[in-house]
Amino acid sequence: MEIDKIGEFGLIEKLRRKIGKRSNRIKLGPGDDCAVVTAPDHNMLITADTLIEDVHFELHYISPEMLGKKSIVVNLSDIAAMGGTPLYILISLGVPISTKVEFVEKLYLGFESMAKKYNCNIIGGDISKSINGLIISITVIGEVKKNLLIRRAGARIRDKIFVTGNLGNSAAGLEILKKSSPVKKNKMIEKHLSPKPRLEEGQILAEKIGVSAMIDLSDGLASDLKRICEESKCGARIYLNKIPLSYGLRRLKKSINKNILDYALFGGEDYELLFTIEEKKVPQLQKRWKKMKIPITNIGEILDKRHGIILVSHGGKEKTLSKRGYEHF
Amino acid sequence: MEIDKIGEFGLIEKLRRKIGKRSNRIKLGPGDDCAVVTAPDHNMLITADTLIEDVHFELHYISPEMLGKKSIVVNLSDIAAMGGTPLYILISLGVPISTKVEFVEKLYLGFESMAKKYNCNIIGGDISKSINGLIISITVIGEVKKNLLIRRAGARIRDKIFVTGNLGNSAAGLEILKKSSPVKKNKMIEKHLSPKPRLEEGQILAEKIGVSAMIDLSDGLASDLKRICEESKCGARIYLNKIPLSYGLRRLKKSINKNILDYALFGGEDYELLFTIEEKKVPQLQKRWKKMKIPITNIGEILDKRHGIILVSHGGKEKTLSKRGYEHF
Repeated sequence: MEIDKIGEFGLIEKLRRKIGKRSNRIKLGPGDDCAVVTAPDHNMLITADTLIEDVHFELHYISPEMLGKKSIVVNLSDIAAMGGTPLYILISLGVPISTKVEFVEKLYLGFESMAKKYNCNIIGGDISKSINGLIISITVIGEVKKNLLIRRAGARIRDKIFVTGNLGNSAAGLEILKKSSPVKKNKMIEKHLSPKPRLEEGQILAEKIGVSAMIDLSDGLASDLKRICEESKCGARIYLNKIPLSYGLRRLKKSINKNILDYALFGGEDYELLFTIEEKKVPQLQKRWKKMKIPITNIGEILDKRHGIILVSHGGKEKTLSKRGYEHF
Repeated sequence: MEIDKIGEFGLIEKLRRKIGKRSNRIKLGPGDDCAVVTAPDHNMLITADTLIEDVHFELHYISPEMLGKKSIVVNLSDIAAMGGTPLYILISLGVPISTKVEFVEKLYLGFESMAKKYNCNIIGGDISKSINGLIISITVIGEVKKNLLIRRAGARIRDKIFVTGNLGNSAAGLEILKKSSPVKKNKMIEKHLSPKPRLEEGQILAEKIGVSAMIDLSDGLASDLKRICEESKCGARIYLNKIPLSYGLRRLKKSINKNILDYALFGGEDYELLFTIEEKKVPQLQKRWKKMKIPITNIGEILDKRHGIILVSHGGKEKTLSKRGYEHF
C-alpha cells in the first residue's frame, strides 16, 4: 500500500501501535508535540523535527541564517505548546558536498542566535554529506514543572477554543514568495521566513491559567484542531468570522481570487498556539492577557465527538469539515 | 571555500567556536560521542545521528528491518562509548512518497526490536516526505552515574590503548556486498549489516575499571584514535601486528590484492570500543574481562603530543600516520 493512501497521520497511527512501553518514567510517548518523561524535579520535554530541502524550504527564497533560525523555532514551538522551557539543542546536518563552508557557518549563526535569544544551548549533533539536498534534523530538550502537563488530550465539552496571533499569514507569505520575483517584503513573508516561538505565551497559559489542551499550529488550523479533537475524543465548532486574519491578508483578498480563510485552515506554519480552556476560566485569561503583546482570540468551542468539526460560515450556515484538506503528506 | 577543503572535522571545529555556553548544567557540549548534562541524580547523555540513503546505506543490500536495527545501534554505540545506559529514542523519518507502508512498518519492526533488546523506549519523532531518498534521523537519550564521565579527552601519556572485538570486518563486509551478487552471507557482511552496540562492555569499562578515555569506532581506527589524541592533546603508537583481525578477514587477504589493515584503519562502522587505560589498571582489566564474550586487545600506547600517531609495521619500522585517510567526508 502507498503511504498517500493512508496519509501521514494514518501511517503514524499504524506505527504507534508497534511501539512498546517498558518504563513508567514515560508520561507521554509518541503522538503529542513533545514526548514527556519524568525527571526527579521536573518533567523533561523532548521533540525532534527534520527539515528537508525542497520539501520544507527552498534555498532560493530563504537565506541560510534565516533558515537556521527557523529550524530552531519550529522545534521550540513544540516546547511552547507544552508550556515548557527549552534547554538543549542537538543539530544533525546532511550537507551536499558542493556546499560552501560559509553557507554552513551562516546557518550556524542562525542556530546560535535563536539558542541565545531563548536562553538555551546547542550541545551536540553531527554533520554528514548528503547527495540530494540539505537536511536539517533538530532535537530540542526542555523541561516543564512536574504538575504541569498540557496535552493535546485534555479538551472537554463546552471548553472554549482560542488561538494566539493571526492565522494564515505564513502560508500566504509562502505563496507570494513562490509567485513573485523580485519579492517586496511584507509581514506575511516575514511570518513565513521568521516565525516566533510562543514560549512565554505557552508558559503563562500552562502555569498561570491552566488551559485544558494545547498544540502549536504547524499544519494549519483544520489539521491541528483535528489532532486535539482526536486525542481528546471530542468535536468542535469554529466560527469562520472569528478566525483572526491580519490586515495584510484581508487586503490580499482583493488582489487574488481565492478564499483567504484557506490559508488559515489548511496553510500551516503559523506556529501560533491553539488551546482550549474551561469556560469559567475565560475571564481570568482575558484579565491576565491585557499585558501581553500577542493577542488571543476565541474562535469556537468544544463539542461532543459525534459532531465532528463544524465550520460556521459568516452567514451562520454550518458545514462539517470534510476529510479533504487535513493532510498534506 | 568548499567543505572538502577543510574536511568534516575541520568544519565541525569551525562551527564549535560559534556556539556559546549559557548553562553550567552542560558538562560536555559538542565534540564527544554524546553531550552530557547534569540531572539531579544522574548525568544525562544525548546523542543524535542521521542516516541518509546512498550515503550511509543502500536499500538494495540491506532489508528495512535490518536498516531499522542498525540505525538504532549506531546511536546506542555512542551511549556505550560513554559507559551509559540508553533510555529514550526519538526517530524522525524523511520518506519518499512512493514508499510502501509495509516498508516503513518493517523499518519500525527493526527500531522497536532493538529498543526492546536494549530495554529502552521509542518515545517520539516525526515523519515527513522526502524527495530524493530515505532519511533516518535518530536521537538517543541515556544516563550515566554522576561520577562517571569517560570522555575522549582523558588519555594520558603511557596509558595503554585497547579495542574490543575485531576491526575491519564491517568495511570488508560492505565491499563484498557492493562487489558480489548474489552475496554469500559471512561474518563480515553480518558485522556490516547487523552491528552490536557494546553497551555492557562500555558500562563495565567505565564503572568497574575506570578507563581514562573511550570512543566508539565508527569512522575507522585512524580517524577515531586521532579524535582521542586531539581531545586528550597527546600522540599514540599503534602496533599494526596487534590490531585484531578476524579469521575471515585474514583469509580474505589471499583472495584480494589489498592491504586488509586498511579496512581496520580507514574503514569504519565496526562499532567496537577504543579505550585508553592507566598501565597499572591493566591486570585488573584482564582479570575482570575473563568472563566476557567479546575479547579486548592491547594495540598500543599513548605518547606525547609531538609524536603524532605512529604506526609500527610488522617488521618494527615506524611511520607517522599522514593526514590522508583520516577523513571520508
